[in-house]
Amino acid sequence: MKAEIVSIGTEMLLGQTLNTNSAYLSRKLAESGIDTFHHSTVGDNKDRLYQAIKIALERSDMVITTGGLGPTIDDITLQAIARISKKPLVFKKEILELIEGHFHKRSIRMPKNNIRQAYIPKGAIWLKNAIGTAPGLIIKAEKKYLIALPGPPREMIPMFEKRVLPYFKKRIKQGSVILSRTLKTTGLAESQIHDRVSRFLRLAKHTTVGIYAHPCQIDLRITSKAANISLAKKNIDVVERAIRKKLGNLIFGSDNQTLEGVVAGLLAPRTIAIAESCTGGLITSRLTDIAGVSKNLLLSIVAYSNKSKTQLLGIQDKTLKQFGAVSKEIARYMAVNIRHVSRADIGISTTGIAGPGGATDKKPVGLVYIGLSTKQKTTVKKLLLTGTRGMIKYKASQAALDMLKHHLSK
Amino acid sequence: MKAEIVSIGTEMLLGQTLNTNSAYLSRKLAESGIDTFHHSTVGDNKDRLYQAIKIALERSDMVITTGGLGPTIDDITLQAIARISKKPLVFKKEILELIEGHFHKRSIRMPKNNIRQAYIPKGAIWLKNAIGTAPGLIIKAEKKYLIALPGPPREMIPMFEKRVLPYFKKRIKQGSVILSRTLKTTGLAESQIHDRVSRFLRLAKHTTVGIYAHPCQIDLRITSKAANISLAKKNIDVVERAIRKKLGNLIFGSDNQTLEGVVAGLLAPRTIAIAESCTGGLITSRLTDIAGVSKNLLLSIVAYSNKSKTQLLGIQDKTLKQFGAVSKEIARYMAVNIRHVSRADIGISTTGIAGPGGATDKKPVGLVYIGLSTKQKTTVKKLLLTGTRGMIKYKASQAALDMLKHHLSK
Repeated sequence: MKAEIVSIGTEMLLGQTLNTNSAYLSRKLAESGIDTFHHSTVGDNKDRLYQAIKIALERSDMVITTGGLGPTIDDITLQAIARISKKPLVFKKEILELIEGHFHKRSIRMPKNNIRQAYIPKGAIWLKNAIGTAPGLIIKAEKKYLIALPGPPREMIPMFEKRVLPYFKKRIKQGSVILSRTLKTTGLAESQIHDRVSRFLRLAKHTTVGIYAHPCQIDLRITSKAANISLAKKNIDVVERAIRKKLGNLIFGSDNQTLEGVVAGLLAPRTIAIAESCTGGLITSRLTDIAGVSKNLLLSIVAYSNKSKTQLLGIQDKTLKQFGAVSKEIARYMAVNIRHVSRADIGISTTGIAGPGGATDKKPVGLVYIGLSTKQKTTVKKLLLTGTRGMIKYKASQAALDMLKHHLSK
Repeated sequence: MKAEIVSIGTEMLLGQTLNTNSAYLSRKLAESGIDTFHHSTVGDNKDRLYQAIKIALERSDMVITTGGLGPTIDDITLQAIARISKKPLVFKKEILELIEGHFHKRSIRMPKNNIRQAYIPKGAIWLKNAIGTAPGLIIKAEKKYLIALPGPPREMIPMFEKRVLPYFKKRIKQGSVILSRTLKTTGLAESQIHDRVSRFLRLAKHTTVGIYAHPCQIDLRITSKAANISLAKKNIDVVERAIRKKLGNLIFGSDNQTLEGVVAGLLAPRTIAIAESCTGGLITSRLTDIAGVSKNLLLSIVAYSNKSKTQLLGIQDKTLKQFGAVSKEIARYMAVNIRHVSRADIGISTTGIAGPGGATDKKPVGLVYIGLSTKQKTTVKKLLLTGTRGMIKYKASQAALDMLKHHLSK
């Protein structure tokens, strides 16, 4: 079964709205063993919409349209579908009652326009909209399926999950399913990851591995096509084991895990305190995104100015002058002293030049030191990062969290 | 001139990657007076890609493909284009030298596969890739244009802006242009904004206003279609003036401005210090995204634990017990004391329950107090926010920055 998503709306063709429906629907279809081979987007134009649905029905078995079901004259999906399926639009009293009820609940008088939404192509199955007024449709014609769904994701998603998916799960002999798992790494560049795993990319039949680069994070996505979910999982497991053997603790997590979530999970029962300079609170903010971290995060100081480094972290003026605020030594003092001040088990610090200003001959934008101090040992890592101010902040926070993760998982 | 964007990549058809290139390109084309009538997406499949480009060239004057220019055998865009344009792929020494240079700079040996990227359809104009290895292409055939760009936005965007747009600006007689301006508000809900501006939404001909809701931020996008840019700008100005008259300082900025950027801009020469509890460093991190803020941001403390509130902010244990850490009184103490400790002109504080745990009968998740203290006056604002932990943190940071903005623009 080949599916195609036709997204309808001029706002997408103007680049004002991102098309998230197509990605969502394709992912859900893939999980149900239905391949999507095309996405197309057209505006609110009768002829182009008609042609787009026609092309879609010629090359695909299932065509899902999203959008164009609203009450205004710009909404023309129903007319296009009526024309293609050669069925007249017929009035459905039940639909009008639902729409009237929708407005009644909100104490608003129903605008006249909404009556249009109660006309649907003859013989179509209509789908109740739990959130808005536009009903959805399923039309079966000559072994092909045409499904019309509303455009707003908050209306489309529940309708698709509650009505469309069950409809097809009953009717379609499941072919193969497509399943993915993502392994997340940090600390190496894309090409380095590629070199290490390239031999393991095709260990199981119909299983592929894609490499996706994010700032300071390389993801490996293992995708398997198999007869059923449990088989797909087994295939993915084989490849995952091989990759984990090769990359070890460069992999910090999988799927929806985040580096800060992994760090927060490893932290307890130890306590931590943070002294941030160039990262400007970002490490702390990322860690506090994780619920429950308040028990272990005793204190964080954004010691942006030299004065705060002196005043709160007890670093002497002459020390700051001797080494400069951005130096290995100051990173060390910051990590040690924040640990002492807070009496935490671990102290972590950053100092660097996030740019675009602030560089000197010897200290370029992107120079960052990260300190990690425990009762046993204090280490400082030097980084040379590239990118915008925001990117350098983010990369430095990622490196600090990674340093923490390695320390905590020892 | 009708344009079509053909996005190439199986990851989009699996719903694993969101197609942001099409929206970006359409927006830029619209600004240059070129209408986009279709978006299509196909996977890394030779026949379907060939057919998709063929259909696109039949119905559009300009077809831009993105993706499929990489070095692996999955990357088949060049072959498809060669087949459609009936030109052989020819080797370009200059391209290979650039690719070799790319690897050389990174001290990595060029993988053999990359040689493929130096073969392009005969007669094509090739476009240097400043970030990656894949060159882009412009091919003109029978009054139609076929442009191939790399898939990663960080490679595609500079190539499009530096090479493709100037190429067409020289060659295409400009029809009408579409221009947009976004006014950004915070502090009111979407329906409240709608009620206030609905009468002003169509003041100028061919000018529309769209309302777009983000967390704690409602944007009004004014879009005008006109014969040229200066006319479009004039139309937008008319509507903008009317909206600004109605919304006043609910509008914090426009287009690419951010609330933190506006606050940072208003701050100097005053100094500020921040004591964050429930926002966990997010306010500080957002402010430090702005270059140069280090001069004015003297100190920030994430006083997550009661101990840090006592130790660094001098709030007595019995005071904490009397009112509870999440209270109007503690927010006030935090704002006043961080100002004293740092000797800043302004002290700002947050304390609240970001959830999902931590609620009591009297203090629900989402209860947040924000304190703002100056030598003259200290005020505390109480908020009841909804959403996930991350959303509550974000909304509280937005409210704090908004409070600052109103104070600073007095």
